[in-house]
Amino acid sequence: MSFVFEPAPVASVAVAGSEDRLPVRRIFCVGRNYAAHAREMGKDPDREPPFFFTKPADAVVDHGATLAYPPLTEDLHYEAELVVVIGTGGRDIAEAQALDHVWGYAAGNDLTRRDLQAEAKQMGRPWDFAKGFDRSAVIGPVHPVSAVGHLTEGAIRLSVNGSRKQDGDLKEMIWSVPEVVAFLSRSVEIRPGDLIMTGTPAGVGALVPGDVCTVSIEGLPALTVTIGARM
Amino acid sequence: MSFVFEPAPVASVAVAGSEDRLPVRRIFCVGRNYAAHAREMGKDPDREPPFFFTKPADAVVDHGATLAYPPLTEDLHYEAELVVVIGTGGRDIAEAQALDHVWGYAAGNDLTRRDLQAEAKQMGRPWDFAKGFDRSAVIGPVHPVSAVGHLTEGAIRLSVNGSRKQDGDLKEMIWSVPEVVAFLSRSVEIRPGDLIMTGTPAGVGALVPGDVCTVSIEGLPALTVTIGARM
Repeated sequence: MSFVFEPAPVASVAVAGSEDRLPVRRIFCVGRNYAAHAREMGKDPDREPPFFFTKPADAVVDHGATLAYPPLTEDLHYEAELVVVIGTGGRDIAEAQALDHVWGYAAGNDLTRRDLQAEAKQMGRPWDFAKGFDRSAVIGPVHPVSAVGHLTEGAIRLSVNGSRKQDGDLKEMIWSVPEVVAFLSRSVEIRPGDLIMTGTPAGVGALVPGDVCTVSIEGLPALTVTIGARM
Repeated sequence: MSFVFEPAPVASVAVAGSEDRLPVRRIFCVGRNYAAHAREMGKDPDREPPFFFTKPADAVVDHGATLAYPPLTEDLHYEAELVVVIGTGGRDIAEAQALDHVWGYAAGNDLTRRDLQAEAKQMGRPWDFAKGFDRSAVIGPVHPVSAVGHLTEGAIRLSVNGSRKQDGDLKEMIWSVPEVVAFLSRSVEIRPGDLIMTGTPAGVGALVPGDVCTVSIEGLPALTVTIGARM
């Protein structure tokens, strides 16, 4: 068996302190997982079960990149997020065992075409064009659990051109990492290389060409990208 | 450079009359692209610009498979669809050039957790759990354009246990294949191995364990799967 044309290169993210890369299988993202962000999006966080959206695996972008301002939007937003990397697959995973499936953690920036998202919500339409465009998943180097342990608290911050825009704490997540992993594994069989972006704290806002945007999560290296010119 | 663990096998679909496989990069799906189906979903087809949702590449399932009834749903639905296979990438593609980017066509079955989709629409939430679960993209062998030309008309039908449920014609698509390819290429850069599921005609309905479901598109081989027991 061979392929009628070359498969795409395997999507991958960096591993901290290593030349090796981590292969990315799928990218799942938790919606509205910090109460103050849920409120800024007009929702009551006490009445919301968790929900997920996705990005294509090949939407990943490394630390240090300059990425073109994407098409179809006038309102590109940043969202600082803790990224969970699955190393061991499974389904119907119990919360008590969920952390055993986590290989590591990274800082992430869930880039969003906010205007397309608002339209999708209003029309009851899918979010895919708002969330799953090219270069929409900025992911920093992955730190293995073996090196940094599990990240259950600590500052999560984002700045644009050095000015702080988001300032939360990982312990403010409505759904903890074990709860998120367990819940996701009821819908799909999770697999090695699946990434889970765990939601963003309050303070989301717009990026424009030329902006330098940095996500800082305590215990992980800073994750910076520059927004380039429009395509 | 190497990987810290093995990447997943490349997702792929069969090629008609060949032992070779076609690598799948991403799966895009057009919503409500036949007027009678838009009406059965409670929408006015004359007032709807096209929209897309996605499935993970590794959700592909071949002709002949028996697939477990998926979790989290009591209302698994079939949807017969023509699948367009992109062979040449590009962005901002003009309609007049769009067919040059098509490598081939296949029959498809866009399996849907309809109850989760209804909930998502009602709550303004993403469709990903409704559309992007494991084994949700049933794709028949791909026929190259070099063998069958472009498919612009012909019957598209679906039967369950030999009883006909959907009966449309490809020429009833609201957005033609060139329009769909051109529109999609404004949002993302399309790439070789991208699949586009082009929407389903009227007559969608439920599948239960034991059902045998066949999609028949004129000019392509029949695509049959069996629904297995609940996971």
